[in-house]
Amino acid sequence: MKPGFEKYIPFQQIKLENREWPNNVITKAPIWCSVDLRDGNQALVDPMNMEEKIEFFHTLVDMGFKEIEIGFPSASETEYEICRELIEGNHIPDDVTIQVLVQAREHLIRKTFEAVKGAKNVIIHFYNSTSTLQRKVVFKTDMEGVTKIAIEGAKLIKQLTDEYTGDTNFRFEYSPESFSGTEVENAVYICDKVMEALGSTKENPVILNLPNTVEMCTPNTYADQVEYFIKHIKNREACIISLHPHNDRGTGVASGELALLAGAERVEGTLFGNGERTGNLDIVTMGLNMFTQGVDPKLDFSNLPKLREIYERCTDMKINPRQPYIGELVFTAFSGSHQDAINKGMQYMKDSGTEYWEIPYLPIDPADVGREYEPIIRINSQSGKGGAAFVMSHNFGYDLPKKMHPEFSKLVQKKCEELGRELIPKELFEVFSENYLEVHQKYALTKRKIYEESENGKDYVHFKGKMTINGADEVTLSGVGNGPIDAFFNAIKKFGLDKYEFISYSQHAISQGSDSKAVSYIELKKPDGKNIFGIGIDSNVNVASVLGVLNAINRAEM
Amino acid sequence: MKPGFEKYIPFQQIKLENREWPNNVITKAPIWCSVDLRDGNQALVDPMNMEEKIEFFHTLVDMGFKEIEIGFPSASETEYEICRELIEGNHIPDDVTIQVLVQAREHLIRKTFEAVKGAKNVIIHFYNSTSTLQRKVVFKTDMEGVTKIAIEGAKLIKQLTDEYTGDTNFRFEYSPESFSGTEVENAVYICDKVMEALGSTKENPVILNLPNTVEMCTPNTYADQVEYFIKHIKNREACIISLHPHNDRGTGVASGELALLAGAERVEGTLFGNGERTGNLDIVTMGLNMFTQGVDPKLDFSNLPKLREIYERCTDMKINPRQPYIGELVFTAFSGSHQDAINKGMQYMKDSGTEYWEIPYLPIDPADVGREYEPIIRINSQSGKGGAAFVMSHNFGYDLPKKMHPEFSKLVQKKCEELGRELIPKELFEVFSENYLEVHQKYALTKRKIYEESENGKDYVHFKGKMTINGADEVTLSGVGNGPIDAFFNAIKKFGLDKYEFISYSQHAISQGSDSKAVSYIELKKPDGKNIFGIGIDSNVNVASVLGVLNAINRAEM
Repeated sequence: MKPGFEKYIPFQQIKLENREWPNNVITKAPIWCSVDLRDGNQALVDPMNMEEKIEFFHTLVDMGFKEIEIGFPSASETEYEICRELIEGNHIPDDVTIQVLVQAREHLIRKTFEAVKGAKNVIIHFYNSTSTLQRKVVFKTDMEGVTKIAIEGAKLIKQLTDEYTGDTNFRFEYSPESFSGTEVENAVYICDKVMEALGSTKENPVILNLPNTVEMCTPNTYADQVEYFIKHIKNREACIISLHPHNDRGTGVASGELALLAGAERVEGTLFGNGERTGNLDIVTMGLNMFTQGVDPKLDFSNLPKLREIYERCTDMKINPRQPYIGELVFTAFSGSHQDAINKGMQYMKDSGTEYWEIPYLPIDPADVGREYEPIIRINSQSGKGGAAFVMSHNFGYDLPKKMHPEFSKLVQKKCEELGRELIPKELFEVFSENYLEVHQKYALTKRKIYEESENGKDYVHFKGKMTINGADEVTLSGVGNGPIDAFFNAIKKFGLDKYEFISYSQHAISQGSDSKAVSYIELKKPDGKNIFGIGIDSNVNVASVLGVLNAINRAEM
Repeated sequence: MKPGFEKYIPFQQIKLENREWPNNVITKAPIWCSVDLRDGNQALVDPMNMEEKIEFFHTLVDMGFKEIEIGFPSASETEYEICRELIEGNHIPDDVTIQVLVQAREHLIRKTFEAVKGAKNVIIHFYNSTSTLQRKVVFKTDMEGVTKIAIEGAKLIKQLTDEYTGDTNFRFEYSPESFSGTEVENAVYICDKVMEALGSTKENPVILNLPNTVEMCTPNTYADQVEYFIKHIKNREACIISLHPHNDRGTGVASGELALLAGAERVEGTLFGNGERTGNLDIVTMGLNMFTQGVDPKLDFSNLPKLREIYERCTDMKINPRQPYIGELVFTAFSGSHQDAINKGMQYMKDSGTEYWEIPYLPIDPADVGREYEPIIRINSQSGKGGAAFVMSHNFGYDLPKKMHPEFSKLVQKKCEELGRELIPKELFEVFSENYLEVHQKYALTKRKIYEESENGKDYVHFKGKMTINGADEVTLSGVGNGPIDAFFNAIKKFGLDKYEFISYSQHAISQGSDSKAVSYIELKKPDGKNIFGIGIDSNVNVASVLGVLNAINRAEM
């Protein structure tokens, strides 16, 4: 065997004339078929038990799946029994079709017909492998050999359907398994023969399922294969083209999407991409990819966390933190510029009243999948100024003025670097509290009265009060000004505190428990020319401002 | 805001004349740039500390990366210090270029130049956001506004480079960030302007990086954007086209691959797809996708388990069991037909001496990424006959004859269903042992002698021995036949045991510790017409066969 990469045979592109699919756009949902209970289930270390399979089945029905592959009932007693229970336990709504997989082999087909007896709607899904490689190394036969197997299977299925005495609506699906590794003209050939043997018509079309059993090429080539297939199959009207992508190259969803552009009408996949080896096409991702393009996916993804819980419990698989739409980290933004942009996007949506979702870095509204805004922004040493401010506003209701962001952000960054990790919102608030709310009060107001007076048509504000300095005896304060801050500054002048220059001020209401208070943000310039912020909170707006000034001074003198 | 899917604005396809990329094939590796230490790191709940970043850097160097984005040194003290340590601690080989990210803003650019002082090779990677949405909601400016920011950044970078006194080789990279959401003609426009401002030439080309910052469309459309860009950029010779795909739609690798077809020359990504939100393009997957197409990826993936260990330890992220190439389950095959095909593929490769990797359902030889064959096949109630036989052969050296597979497989399936879970190989062997090796010996040989004799040119085999029946007194056995089995049958005839009919026999050597023994598989037909197998093991091949017959009889009479 050749060493390393040289031992692999590159996939041969097919010759496709007048390629059309790259000009197309996905504008409607395909027919979805869940294969969670078969392909997904068979790839589990511990396959689901009866109870889990039934619960999963109902979950799929509730999401809106109308076609569900429930298993391979001829493969084991367990599979057979689950199929019977679904039917006999009346678990299957009238508008849902169960699909059962079976190899194109006589005794298995017969057992399968037994297994589905009494169901209302059934798709008998039969397959045999057709790829060049499998013909060579597994079946040691040629195209005629595998075609014969498929035709015989088809004929038997037709015969058993004709002989069937019951109310079941039968439909048929044929998969040239390992389609992706089959010469595309051979795939067309065998499917033409199967359609003849089944007697497929426009009224009673067969589902031709084209598995990307093992991903062997870039997704555009799978799309080329599908377009070629569709253009060459003889009786196009009498078949529904179905996809069954796997994910060996990590491009299962892409292959599915491009093959839809190429004209496929139906997609087989699983929730969260469960399935053999690297898994099947992830229907959640593909469906929500449509959703975020304004296309109705015709499946209900509105409570992904619940779907996740059921999925993880029944399959014992875990979802990756970066899995699109559902991963724990996909609605986070650690980078400062991302945080800032999200912040501004939300503001824009509020201000503009736009009908559309217009938030950078969030391709979907988390609420549309039952998730929350809370964890969108997380605070670590890599976060920018906007992130911390967003959490203060969103989680705690403090709208820090923009000029204050750099000061607060530095305090947060220092804390993150100290701890060597991200802060949770509670810890962020602690940074805020330690640095603003619990500051050592060198100057502490013990008494205060603020009142307005009009004299000669001019308004004055008076500040009167008492203050301790470094815990010593109270001193008396008295000052007049054009507003409470001005009056207070005049009152503290005699202690040399006019060395601080008032720069800016902002204020808003904040709810703490039952009562609403005012929070005041005061910016002062220190004698060294640098600015510093202070915070004051009080039920009286004027008092809040005064406390803010004192807070800034106390912070400066620490 | 509109409800549900209606609130999303679909991506507008671009008009691309004479589309070329779908006709291309990837035939060589791109220039790889790892952004693990920047984009990957900034998306971690706890970013890497100094020690971890240094270890990760060396790991990337050892894999063969020649361009490594090490951080955003103007963004935080930590980032700055790590950059200095890499340079001053002589961690960077002469043939490796470090890349540093910076926004196109003056003070950040100046700080960045300080941060890289003394490095041998540096790419200054500057960016600003250009998308329609960000211009509208974040920057509240037009295309001229964002272009001005980029040009001023470029001019400052050129100036600082000209003024720089030192040996550093500077190269430049510009990203029109959120390229994917930027009108493609505007992306070309701003990049043309940046190239002018930098004075890019064929000899000193700029890297133009086209981020799929947020995946907003199917991968073919990203490829269209890239092809359009390449066809319209004025000075094509003086730029290197780089990709930076994210994974919001789960199609990051596909977007990267199709954009390479469209003519890009360089790819930014991370190991295992770490990065903001849903992550960056996974370089391991993309590189190994090339590898399995016979293309040298120019990166060393030969010990993925070691890479995984370093990655998981440094980032505190976990790899999904279905992640291509590295996931725990990707080299498993639970389904019977898959197991059987893998088995036959291996046999084919052994028999044919082919130079190529030709195994169905295994797109890569696990050994090429430092993984093992052992866990390929796992045994659960969904497994077919081939799987259990493969493990018996591969793990324990017992080559069960094909006719014996169904019998053994039923015993295994029963055990799985009893336990409600998969069997590990050891448990599979226990099933074998309990059912064949530790059978109750109704008939037990206590003494035996087998010898050959020639008479009148004819060969005879004699069997002589003693046997207990149900633990009672020994009985004497004596028989002659054309072989040991025939002789033994003749010897036990008198106890009515000729009601069992001999059907088939196979045998091979098996090593158990230091001595090699023979294992014999005997198939008998029981009086009820059903067949049953027995196993005999002995250092003497004839004795092994006799023991096999007795084993089958004892099993039948249980």
